[in-house]
Amino acid sequence: MSTCSSTEGQVIRCKAAVAWGPGKPLVIEEVEVAPPQAMEVRLKILFTSLCHTDVYFWEAKGQTPVFPRIFGHEAAGIVESVGEGVTELKPGDHVLPVFTGECKECRHCKSEESNMCDLLRINTDRGVMLNDGKSRFSINGKPIYHFVGTSTFSEYTVVHVGCVAKINPEAPLDKVCVLSCGISTGLGATLNVAKPPKGSTVAIFGLGAVGLAAAEGARIAGASRIIGVDLNSNRFEEAKKFGVTEFVNPKDYNKPVQEVLAEITDGGVDRSIECTGSINAMISAFECVHDGWGVAVLVGVPNKDDAFRTHPINVLNEKTLKGTFFGNYKPRTDLPSVVEKYMNKELELEKFITHEVPFSEINKAFEYMLKGAGLRCIIHMGA
Amino acid sequence: MSTCSSTEGQVIRCKAAVAWGPGKPLVIEEVEVAPPQAMEVRLKILFTSLCHTDVYFWEAKGQTPVFPRIFGHEAAGIVESVGEGVTELKPGDHVLPVFTGECKECRHCKSEESNMCDLLRINTDRGVMLNDGKSRFSINGKPIYHFVGTSTFSEYTVVHVGCVAKINPEAPLDKVCVLSCGISTGLGATLNVAKPPKGSTVAIFGLGAVGLAAAEGARIAGASRIIGVDLNSNRFEEAKKFGVTEFVNPKDYNKPVQEVLAEITDGGVDRSIECTGSINAMISAFECVHDGWGVAVLVGVPNKDDAFRTHPINVLNEKTLKGTFFGNYKPRTDLPSVVEKYMNKELELEKFITHEVPFSEINKAFEYMLKGAGLRCIIHMGA
Repeated sequence: MSTCSSTEGQVIRCKAAVAWGPGKPLVIEEVEVAPPQAMEVRLKILFTSLCHTDVYFWEAKGQTPVFPRIFGHEAAGIVESVGEGVTELKPGDHVLPVFTGECKECRHCKSEESNMCDLLRINTDRGVMLNDGKSRFSINGKPIYHFVGTSTFSEYTVVHVGCVAKINPEAPLDKVCVLSCGISTGLGATLNVAKPPKGSTVAIFGLGAVGLAAAEGARIAGASRIIGVDLNSNRFEEAKKFGVTEFVNPKDYNKPVQEVLAEITDGGVDRSIECTGSINAMISAFECVHDGWGVAVLVGVPNKDDAFRTHPINVLNEKTLKGTFFGNYKPRTDLPSVVEKYMNKELELEKFITHEVPFSEINKAFEYMLKGAGLRCIIHMGA
Repeated sequence: MSTCSSTEGQVIRCKAAVAWGPGKPLVIEEVEVAPPQAMEVRLKILFTSLCHTDVYFWEAKGQTPVFPRIFGHEAAGIVESVGEGVTELKPGDHVLPVFTGECKECRHCKSEESNMCDLLRINTDRGVMLNDGKSRFSINGKPIYHFVGTSTFSEYTVVHVGCVAKINPEAPLDKVCVLSCGISTGLGATLNVAKPPKGSTVAIFGLGAVGLAAAEGARIAGASRIIGVDLNSNRFEEAKKFGVTEFVNPKDYNKPVQEVLAEITDGGVDRSIECTGSINAMISAFECVHDGWGVAVLVGVPNKDDAFRTHPINVLNEKTLKGTFFGNYKPRTDLPSVVEKYMNKELELEKFITHEVPFSEINKAFEYMLKGAGLRCIIHMGA
């Protein structure tokens, strides 16, 4: 069998969903995708899903806008060809592209405790590849910019090898594509960072996809009480599928939610996971854990001007505050084992997938998310 | 051999240093010490040392004063007699009394992660024993109050059995007495909570006895750089004995000390331990740790009105904030092994002992501490 594809070394012409400006509906265009350069791989994307981060940077409110741009970072695909120096991947490998990377050389990659690679850590402002500072996408010779190094809203994309996790070729790509961002973020926040002991009580702040993935982690870890906290009570019914056993809506009380949680848990929860990014939820998530052993994990991304504020006695009382980025998973090293958790039926992914659309209807996925409908919408590139 | 002492069941008349009012020099008085009640033990104190907490509550600034009172909580002694229900200790046992306890029955004691016993956690306002709400000390029938359940500035004292650690009878009591508070607090903050990997860089904020004990912990753990941070540069010379390799005085720079530390450590220290209680030092100690893996441990006790404030992105960048109380040691379960560390010559205690005085000159120990002279002053009860 040859590992050499017929397109190797050639420019590929294919369809991509281009965002021409902030908030403008994506347009399916024919783009040219240049071959991968040193330490890059070109991927054929089969399935991609939409995550809030795509929408956030597409709306580009209060940011330096980078347009025209190809968004997309939750996806699964197959390696089409590899650039110079790439030895770990070959054409035909099944992979997940990831918005953050693992160079395996920097202090972070060499530390067992960090996944914040110095070279390939997420950079939302950069629209070009590291190797030459240029884009691999163009239309009539004019560059179309990348997004977080992945740009998966295209039939083909070019990604740094450090941002590609090789996975079990038996894994269904239309399911495991959701593991390349949000679901792993929530799941890892619980399993890798909060680490709830069996039988413990866990509070989850925010019952969107990330929060429900955190709840799924708590269920897998054997937590006996999983308390969902959300301002939208409609979310409780669905959250039950993810192991959430109780629900607290802060709007239903006229005291801080951390006090409500302390009352129903004899002093505080054992672990809390904050998935909203709201500064008040962060403070509540920290203050609601039990003294002596409680651990609060922050996942949600805050606003630039927010200040986390608490009385230091909360810390002195042996509460721990931790943050996590991508669930503390190292993309290349750890994602294959998360895929295995799904293959072993330990982790359920189907329940996160609430919508599916063909690539031509990608703007529907944006509409679902802006309406807050469902959790994940899978975009079928081949359809 | 009889385990029954001649004084068992009797009131003992002995010398104690009584604080008659806030900030007033202690007076050596003859006091009556009642026999231990249920779950109590009466100890003959041989050596005690002075800790800042004694001075703080003796000065009684901004607190509800409890006087007359017998202070003292860092000490070593021998069990004289035991009350009803006490099975783990017998007359003659060598022990360290501790200001906080371990009932072995509550959720904290049953948790591997906590040492904040619900029943016997430090209570600085209570001047009486739990069993009957009364003091065991009196002069002419008038009660003299206890301090944090220990009151070791007395030849004999009565303590709850949960606040007594039985130690190796070979251990020299005039040295290991310092393990019953400050030294264990700093040492445990490093060894049990910060857990610096071998070869790591550790910053210590505050080079008093607790901070130097934290540095001693970092030395034992094999840290390769131990950076002392203190507003008093005179402390650096002595700190070298405790493994401190570098010194930073925040006053010498016109930028925040966390930035200075980040510059000299290529992005931040691996671990930091805050031993001053100053809110600004707490914030600096958190912000100076490296993203990805840094852990900051707060030991110093803050003021009531302080607010810990930081941008949440510092947390999201995988920095961890933890607090500790008594170095996370469970008094009865863990202190015997700390004594063994000294017996094995792994831990050095002599260098913490800078002064020694006979009991009759106990007020000198207060003078040394108020002047900031030295680290620990051992008070010889028999002298």
